[in-house]
Amino acid sequence: MKTPSSLTVLTDSLRRLPGIGPKTAQRMAYHLLQHDRDAAADLSQSLAKALDTIRHCALCNTFTEQVVCETCQDSQRDHTQLCVVESPSDQVMIEQTLTFKGLYFVLMGRLSPLDGIGPRDIHLEKLITRATDGVVSEVVLATNFTNEGEATAHYISETLKARGLKVSRLARGVPVGGELEYVDAGTIARAMLDRRTT
Amino acid sequence: MKTPSSLTVLTDSLRRLPGIGPKTAQRMAYHLLQHDRDAAADLSQSLAKALDTIRHCALCNTFTEQVVCETCQDSQRDHTQLCVVESPSDQVMIEQTLTFKGLYFVLMGRLSPLDGIGPRDIHLEKLITRATDGVVSEVVLATNFTNEGEATAHYISETLKARGLKVSRLARGVPVGGELEYVDAGTIARAMLDRRTT
Repeated sequence: MKTPSSLTVLTDSLRRLPGIGPKTAQRMAYHLLQHDRDAAADLSQSLAKALDTIRHCALCNTFTEQVVCETCQDSQRDHTQLCVVESPSDQVMIEQTLTFKGLYFVLMGRLSPLDGIGPRDIHLEKLITRATDGVVSEVVLATNFTNEGEATAHYISETLKARGLKVSRLARGVPVGGELEYVDAGTIARAMLDRRTT
Repeated sequence: MKTPSSLTVLTDSLRRLPGIGPKTAQRMAYHLLQHDRDAAADLSQSLAKALDTIRHCALCNTFTEQVVCETCQDSQRDHTQLCVVESPSDQVMIEQTLTFKGLYFVLMGRLSPLDGIGPRDIHLEKLITRATDGVVSEVVLATNFTNEGEATAHYISETLKARGLKVSRLARGVPVGGELEYVDAGTIARAMLDRRTT
């Protein structure tokens, strides 16, 4: 019994989506062809459209359809502060806090030597050019607090401090609403070392 | 801060895949655009290709690129037996057992009144036409042993028996390798009622 070749090809393509295994890919293919051909056509077109129009902002490296994204074009923002994040979704989270009015640089990744991701893959040259434009005075590192994120922050910090920039990092400590009993010892240790006079 | 519109459209399209929520869709979109544009192009094309070429077999209703699928064209098979399954993957599972040499009818679904899926949605008219072609003498119902699958089997059974066909159902009982201690009471009850003289 043979599966039609274009169905096999479709299943294989769906498997290339992150986190999708063979069974899920097959279920998706059947679902699309049997129950939701509109969604399939829609997805085919929006993939082609996005590939065609989405590029990286010349300044902050995030996804945009223009040469420079709208955030970077915003004259209301503080051009002396630059916040470095790993991904556009991290940028969205920081925007939601309303605590940062400067500009961003989106690495689109993190250093991860084990996966072969080095400084070039996270666009470090572009970040250095951006941060040393003469206007930026402080770089806030807001990479994740994972091992890779911390290593990335450390690497960028050393690189930029060597060029005379002020570099800061988001504070570590006990999360808002956190109960000490349920917070890990590493976090409490860091909160103790970084304690602030009130 | 605005997300580029073609990126939003892509994320929305990915959300229409079964089992994909907003966070996963966003992660997939970022991954495709940043790390695997080849996979995105590939998926776009294979979706378009599949939509263009995949249709339903005129006889067994499964996915095929021809008018009649290869299985139905196979003259080596027993044309007097027809096995009714819910999906092409169920058909693959039965083929793997090498215990059935007849032909198939793929419902592409199951009766589910709560979801508004009635006899028309599972192509019952087509099944009746197929089963009453004068060659088929036995219909083996191999829908799933879920509530919907059982209801579907019952409905098809009544419909086809009224037309004078012999209708059978896969046996229920204790699975191979099953330990009675860990098998549910319903299964043991069924195995007891259906016990066979040895």
